[in-house]
Amino acid sequence: MVIDSIPLLIPDLPSTKQLLPWLQRIEHNKWYTNFGPLVQEFESKLVQLFTQWNHGNYYLTTVSSGTDALELALLALNIPEKRRALLPAFTFPATATAIKQCGLQPVFTDVEPSSWLLTPAIARQVLKKMAFDVVLPVATFGYPQPVDEWDKFQEETGIPVLIDAAAAFGTQPLGERCIITFSFHATKPFGIGEGGLVVANSADFIHQVNKLSNFGFDCGIISQSGSNAKLSEYHAAVALAQLERWHQIIKRRKKIWEIYRHYLGAMGNKISLQETPDDPVPATLSIKLNDIGNNLSQLVKQLAKKGIQTRRWYYPPLSEHPAFRDIQRVAPDGGDCLGVTKELSMSLLGLPFHTDLNEEMIDYICCHLLYSKNHSQFPMASEQSFPITQND
Amino acid sequence: MVIDSIPLLIPDLPSTKQLLPWLQRIEHNKWYTNFGPLVQEFESKLVQLFTQWNHGNYYLTTVSSGTDALELALLALNIPEKRRALLPAFTFPATATAIKQCGLQPVFTDVEPSSWLLTPAIARQVLKKMAFDVVLPVATFGYPQPVDEWDKFQEETGIPVLIDAAAAFGTQPLGERCIITFSFHATKPFGIGEGGLVVANSADFIHQVNKLSNFGFDCGIISQSGSNAKLSEYHAAVALAQLERWHQIIKRRKKIWEIYRHYLGAMGNKISLQETPDDPVPATLSIKLNDIGNNLSQLVKQLAKKGIQTRRWYYPPLSEHPAFRDIQRVAPDGGDCLGVTKELSMSLLGLPFHTDLNEEMIDYICCHLLYSKNHSQFPMASEQSFPITQND
Repeated sequence: MVIDSIPLLIPDLPSTKQLLPWLQRIEHNKWYTNFGPLVQEFESKLVQLFTQWNHGNYYLTTVSSGTDALELALLALNIPEKRRALLPAFTFPATATAIKQCGLQPVFTDVEPSSWLLTPAIARQVLKKMAFDVVLPVATFGYPQPVDEWDKFQEETGIPVLIDAAAAFGTQPLGERCIITFSFHATKPFGIGEGGLVVANSADFIHQVNKLSNFGFDCGIISQSGSNAKLSEYHAAVALAQLERWHQIIKRRKKIWEIYRHYLGAMGNKISLQETPDDPVPATLSIKLNDIGNNLSQLVKQLAKKGIQTRRWYYPPLSEHPAFRDIQRVAPDGGDCLGVTKELSMSLLGLPFHTDLNEEMIDYICCHLLYSKNHSQFPMASEQSFPITQND
Repeated sequence: MVIDSIPLLIPDLPSTKQLLPWLQRIEHNKWYTNFGPLVQEFESKLVQLFTQWNHGNYYLTTVSSGTDALELALLALNIPEKRRALLPAFTFPATATAIKQCGLQPVFTDVEPSSWLLTPAIARQVLKKMAFDVVLPVATFGYPQPVDEWDKFQEETGIPVLIDAAAAFGTQPLGERCIITFSFHATKPFGIGEGGLVVANSADFIHQVNKLSNFGFDCGIISQSGSNAKLSEYHAAVALAQLERWHQIIKRRKKIWEIYRHYLGAMGNKISLQETPDDPVPATLSIKLNDIGNNLSQLVKQLAKKGIQTRRWYYPPLSEHPAFRDIQRVAPDGGDCLGVTKELSMSLLGLPFHTDLNEEMIDYICCHLLYSKNHSQFPMASEQSFPITQND
């Protein structure tokens, strides 16, 4: 078997042919942004989808990115400057940058060892040590947050919950109180290039987010100032074409996931997978190598030599980046050591996970993973390293 | 002559057919955002264009909007929180929202009566009364700022100058010190849907803005945190197709402007036009009605009844929006009355200005403008008002 290279990610977006009818509609409308007809149609179809998936009335607005979704939802919550926002240290930077951009004070906490999530239980423990004004649990790697429990947390504490479900479109259920944001970045299961979404149960809240995405204009007057974060008609065109392919993308990703589970199963307790009761298809496949010690970098290099592109999520953890080192951290036990985040960052490896994979490739990946892990140097390994060409 | 309606603006963007070859390249590359090959090609072509238009070495980075261009350029300047940023009250809200989003303190000043611009002379007068840490002159309605004078201002005072040239791509010259931002919003002469640009003489500065547009990542590490403001490959595709039409768009806009000047000339001193030495083709055509008193709203309605869509730029002035009412204002004389801004906001009328106009339409507009202005009610005017359908 000859396998040249297996990229970590190949985005699965509509073809030019699939985009054409939507682009022709833009050309006909001569409306290119500012809440145009394609954005409106996409939003209507999303409301239908969410109503199918959940029970309840949902309101939503598209925005230009998952990061803007977080920023504008935080702005719309109208929390006074410098107040504390709790987030996991084990997340992508956007969760923290959004908090900083809104003039709030991020506070890092840890995640739960099996789900790798900031759970309501952790937030309750932190709350005994330190007050905070909003919490941003993350649906890490597309694993859904327990929205019912978060609804209860919000009801009991009065603290607003904003779930950063960037990678969890299609897996994160909606609740009755939490605000939920999604990303449509090219690397997400539902990718459109750049794009984001805010969903909530309150029509007023979503109206406010929508206005803030256009500077705050409400009938020509600005009462709260926002920014520019409108989804353009071009991105809405990609989104509408993508919606037509969504069923088939989900099906294919589910199949890939089943094959992976089969092959990873052969590795026994050498590895662990992320665990939540929902057992979703992940957005990004990360495995935890249970006795890797400090050898993960070596393993990454060995796999690269075999053409297998991997990624260490999230290494270093957010709290170790120079920009975030001064940020306060509170572990569930009240200390400042975020032990689970630290351990995960040292032992997690992101494997290729996309719809271009087949069983042969997955077999190849898992076989070399097991082999490389057991040998310090790969025998007869080519010195040529695999170039990173995909967007990530 | 029967003219149903004349919209204020009809964006002039590439056709689906003109987009096709670029979209096919995206499909081939499978690269949809994050500094992809089309963004790189667009940026290279922009560098060539600016080098043709100006003398000097320029560095630039695209971003997702003109507002993001301002926000990230301000962030990259690394000005301590709460410091003062001087801007004209006579501008679009983005100039002020960007300052607020970056945690700086906006300070409004006035504009010069004939150019309608915040000039270096005004900034120098303000500086005698109050210190500020950055100044954001605006190339209002696409009229260029005197960049050489601003370079001199920056050299002499040490205060960085960030020119908000949102509407002035093609008319705003570059200098040797000032940072300049542009917008590619659909309503701008060079429209691509949503998009923006930061240009500067410093490679390091542009590198930093570029990194901040991707959260601040620099080889996987974040030292200064940013946001997500990357131009997607789809918007770059529109931009590359638009570049091929740019020469023809400029030519057409110049022609429209010449016709307008001819017909507006007939109105003598009843109206004034914006004046700068460069005499550029405006991005947006605003005329000042010299003896309109409080009757502008009435005129807008009368023109609407004749199918002529107009817009009162910028009414109310920025300083009168509830979100900005608390912001400090300093007139060039040291007082807090921004007299020119106030007068302009009461007497300016934006007229249709786009490449779909022809001489017959412009004649019709100017004829009804003169007629309506001289009559309190239009004789036999239809009561049907003109619906606003364009994006604005």
